[in-house]
Amino acid sequence: MIGNDIHQFAKELWPINRSITGEGVRETLERIKLHLPSLKVNSVPSGTNVFDWTVPREWSVTEAYIVTPSGERICDFNVNNLHLLGYSVPFEGEIDLSELKEHLYTLSEQPDAIPYITSYYKERWGFCLSQEQHNELTEGKYYVKIDSKLFDGVLNYAELILEGKSSKEVFISTYICHPSMANNELSGPTVVTYLAKWLSELKQRDYTYRIVFIPETIGSITYLSLHHDLMKKNVFSGFNVSCVGDDRAYSYLPSRNGTTISDKVAKHVLKNTDPTYKTYTWLDRGSEERQYCAPGIDLPIASIMRTKYGQYPEYHTSLDDLENVVTPRGLDGGYWALRRAIEAIEKNKKYKVTVLCEPQMGKRGLYPTLSTKKSNEQVRLMMNLISLCDGNSSLLDIAESLGAPVWDLYDLIDTLLSHKLVEVSE
Amino acid sequence: MIGNDIHQFAKELWPINRSITGEGVRETLERIKLHLPSLKVNSVPSGTNVFDWTVPREWSVTEAYIVTPSGERICDFNVNNLHLLGYSVPFEGEIDLSELKEHLYTLSEQPDAIPYITSYYKERWGFCLSQEQHNELTEGKYYVKIDSKLFDGVLNYAELILEGKSSKEVFISTYICHPSMANNELSGPTVVTYLAKWLSELKQRDYTYRIVFIPETIGSITYLSLHHDLMKKNVFSGFNVSCVGDDRAYSYLPSRNGTTISDKVAKHVLKNTDPTYKTYTWLDRGSEERQYCAPGIDLPIASIMRTKYGQYPEYHTSLDDLENVVTPRGLDGGYWALRRAIEAIEKNKKYKVTVLCEPQMGKRGLYPTLSTKKSNEQVRLMMNLISLCDGNSSLLDIAESLGAPVWDLYDLIDTLLSHKLVEVSE
Amino acid sequence: MIGNDIHQFAKELWPINRSITGEGVRETLERIKLHLPSLKVNSVPSGTNVFDWTVPREWSVTEAYIVTPSGERICDFNVNNLHLLGYSVPFEGEIDLSELKEHLYTLSEQPDAIPYITSYYKERWGFCLSQEQHNELTEGKYYVKIDSKLFDGVLNYAELILEGKSSKEVFISTYICHPSMANNELSGPTVVTYLAKWLSELKQRDYTYRIVFIPETIGSITYLSLHHDLMKKNVFSGFNVSCVGDDRAYSYLPSRNGTTISDKVAKHVLKNTDPTYKTYTWLDRGSEERQYCAPGIDLPIASIMRTKYGQYPEYHTSLDDLENVVTPRGLDGGYWALRRAIEAIEKNKKYKVTVLCEPQMGKRGLYPTLSTKKSNEQVRLMMNLISLCDGNSSLLDIAESLGAPVWDLYDLIDTLLSHKLVEVSE
Repeated sequence: MIGNDIHQFAKELWPINRSITGEGVRETLERIKLHLPSLKVNSVPSGTNVFDWTVPREWSVTEAYIVTPSGERICDFNVNNLHLLGYSVPFEGEIDLSELKEHLYTLSEQPDAIPYITSYYKERWGFCLSQEQHNELTEGKYYVKIDSKLFDGVLNYAELILEGKSSKEVFISTYICHPSMANNELSGPTVVTYLAKWLSELKQRDYTYRIVFIPETIGSITYLSLHHDLMKKNVFSGFNVSCVGDDRAYSYLPSRNGTTISDKVAKHVLKNTDPTYKTYTWLDRGSEERQYCAPGIDLPIASIMRTKYGQYPEYHTSLDDLENVVTPRGLDGGYWALRRAIEAIEKNKKYKVTVLCEPQMGKRGLYPTLSTKKSNEQVRLMMNLISLCDGNSSLLDIAESLGAPVWDLYDLIDTLLSHKLVEVSE
Repeated sequence: MIGNDIHQFAKELWPINRSITGEGVRETLERIKLHLPSLKVNSVPSGTNVFDWTVPREWSVTEAYIVTPSGERICDFNVNNLHLLGYSVPFEGEIDLSELKEHLYTLSEQPDAIPYITSYYKERWGFCLSQEQHNELTEGKYYVKIDSKLFDGVLNYAELILEGKSSKEVFISTYICHPSMANNELSGPTVVTYLAKWLSELKQRDYTYRIVFIPETIGSITYLSLHHDLMKKNVFSGFNVSCVGDDRAYSYLPSRNGTTISDKVAKHVLKNTDPTYKTYTWLDRGSEERQYCAPGIDLPIASIMRTKYGQYPEYHTSLDDLENVVTPRGLDGGYWALRRAIEAIEKNKKYKVTVLCEPQMGKRGLYPTLSTKKSNEQVRLMMNLISLCDGNSSLLDIAESLGAPVWDLYDLIDTLLSHKLVEVSE
Repeated sequence: MIGNDIHQFAKELWPINRSITGEGVRETLERIKLHLPSLKVNSVPSGTNVFDWTVPREWSVTEAYIVTPSGERICDFNVNNLHLLGYSVPFEGEIDLSELKEHLYTLSEQPDAIPYITSYYKERWGFCLSQEQHNELTEGKYYVKIDSKLFDGVLNYAELILEGKSSKEVFISTYICHPSMANNELSGPTVVTYLAKWLSELKQRDYTYRIVFIPETIGSITYLSLHHDLMKKNVFSGFNVSCVGDDRAYSYLPSRNGTTISDKVAKHVLKNTDPTYKTYTWLDRGSEERQYCAPGIDLPIASIMRTKYGQYPEYHTSLDDLENVVTPRGLDGGYWALRRAIEAIEKNKKYKVTVLCEPQMGKRGLYPTLSTKKSNEQVRLMMNLISLCDGNSSLLDIAESLGAPVWDLYDLIDTLLSHKLVEVSE
């Protein structure tokens, strides 16, 4: 089960302190590059204007912690990088508990969870800790140390282009900007790494694949500001990959218009993988589709997920881990749903039967000699398939008409192609 | 509550004897003109050919009553104008009860109601009375006096044109041809009078408004025969206003094709005013849409009503009054539903976001500084609104996508316009 | 009831040994020709290539039977032609029961039924018998005699062209290739014979009718190979007629695209004949639509049936008879459903009202003088009909809008045509 390998890789990436910029992003991308040698890591300077935004300063952290009145070191960034408010400015000093509390963030409804909080666009410092730990803080002087730096540096992202027979592109995007969390971070880049490995090893690709690992929001806006014109011309399908690692549900979130080939494929794959899959609407969006499907950008990007961000209790806390939330089996399901979606896009041609009226199957040996229930169903499916190869219906359309998973048709269509009973009409 | 003013005005118009022609129509129009000084009252001579019809003779009544054998005066037109069959020819004479009965009309299933009956296109005379009164009539000679006149005169209607920036027109029609009845008569012209007052006082109108007060059927046919060519070119939306005064229901009756902007607006307003509103079909029609939406006329006219004609027990009887049926609150609801519909038409532009990807709202101060549940919802609504301003969707389409009343978007869209984050694309 | 005549005719055709070729087909066609003198019987030589197929050899049988060890003659083809496996090669010889059993076919789940089995495309011989009879066979020598012949002869089919005002064609197809079975054979050609009689006697036909009696599959493929180009140009509607003789259900099976005029008419007629009618899908197909609607052929052919082939227990057995399965009443229902469908196609023009606004009906005497509930409904129906005669809606569209059977509108539309209130717009 490939889910085991992906889970192992996620464990490797777990401790790295990722943010929207900084060393953690670069280290993460370098480890991904070990699997994908052609991956190209790029950087964009702080201060660059990208559409309505500006690339922010780079953030680095050496250490950060609090020492209690009794001398105990708590909220140590090196123990759990969630303890430090993302993009905290540097600070050092001794302060009262009451003043300290203005910089502490907890989740009272999940008292054992450290919340994940950032302040990218307003300067602050702060620590995140569990409500339980917060409750134990006593009066007195606290020594606070945040050795961080905000400076003009770069924003990094990585890009892998896998060329296919056609310059038409399938776009796959995932983000690498959250620290140690599993479903809403590591499931995305690890599953995409393994999808990219599979794609790069294919003997033949009909389409070109554009695969990016970027920081969320500012990363996709930056990437679009550089590549949008070309992408608008070439990208005809794609997926944003996030939250594909737990084993509790399958989910679909549409592109803005909801009727692209990506949407059709996503719904088809999920319906045939788990009929109880959950459908969200455009109004439930919250990830890169906000940029990819923005008016004027209009890329055909949908989301295939396991449990969606914001829809599970561990989301954006220290409880979103690789033990209780993300599992090998969960990652395996996420990987295969996306792989089936990509395969369906590759196979989704329009086929046309080459003879008028039904073909005489017997003379070609295409009727089974031993008639069993299974073989009868296969013959029926083949005759139905032939009857729908009208040159106007895609294989996906046909699969929907037949109420069958499109992948059940791949062998049949290959047989018909090899007997020259159908041909690709487009 | 504007419903109080409208109700007061309806009381003023109550006693006037309206019909499809005659002095009552003129008096009604003159009183409306006191509110709308620009109103123009027109007349068309009897005998004029209007499409397949002919303008009928004018009808006037001086007095009409019956004297019973015991000398009591009953069915006195001056006490209740419903007593006289509409368009009764003159008659005077003494007749037996049995002969009289051939000219009496009652409603046995509503024994205390005087029915409203007319005979526009066949010459007759008659009286309408309650079944209870009818039951008390004794044998003997009855003296009948109908001092009425049918003569070559005119058919009157009134028209108010309120010019807007565009020559494209919104058409509003109501009728003034029923005698003393409230929901199925006075609610229409009184609500339209107050809508016209509001419209005429607006600082700016994007569209031109064509507002008519006409006798039903023959009036709309006459009006169309005179103005159809121009209206077909300019009218892109409109409503027939009838039965907008009781407080028991909201109702919608579609245009013939059912998909005009008037239909979309009517359904949107009613759904967001009263989710239990009643939907009728084209086959349930019974008012001016029969002419406005006739094949070849094809104006986009829908109906927003309270309780539809024919659907309440007091309809077309003396019980349809200003005490038990039509109320200030009922009129207020009718007025606001129509006003919201008209406002929605004025606001129903297509907007386009001016930046690529999501705008950075923070730098414009468009994120609330105090984060409350209410403000979060507003931010969410604004981001959703922006995400749908693609230049192809009207504000109404967007409101439908958002599941929000379109009027909840007016302030937001104005804010976005003032920050130049969206622009009108059409 | 015309069903009685059709049933009588079916009885006449019952004993003839039909197959896809041979004397039985010719005899059946000759008897049909007695009703339809213009019917033209054609023949195509064995070995002719027809699209992907080849016209098979002709089959003739003189006699066929088995003599048991006790000297009893069983499975006698002259007693029941189902006893002989269709297209059996000749055989004569004495064999053991065990060897004989390899050539015997029964239906264990219907022990009293002789199954209907053929082997058109692989050379074999065999007998079909009831499981009950099979159970009684004792050990010993059996004498088998099959005096049959397979030789280069012809395949026959018959064709009747009834010319109409337009060269546009309605195509009606039925098959004459099954031996003594009733619903899945004789109901089709007998009902079509009576439909063709009715059509040929019509004073006027707007469309041309192409009516064929052919062997199933190879017959339709042969016919299409000869006439497809012309048919593709002219045929705009049509039905395959099969299983129209029992009285247990009405059924509809769509054309491949499911939205042709034939489909619309079939659904309309069936809904208004029996609201509980059964709808099948293209995936349930099994008769000539497999060829007529094949990709590239694409004729607009749907099926109106009583109980569909394969959906009743007696299907393809000796129990599918003219006593218990097919009845006069069942045939009558099949005939009328198809006749109503054909009538609907003839009447399905687009009509346009000739006056603007509602016409004044009174002056034309089109309002009933005596107002009854029935006459009011008729007036309402007529005004509704007029309101929908917009020149773009067909009479069938209008009937659907009105929720009325289209045949309820024929008299009204004729009245409106005669008063020149509507005209055919297309």
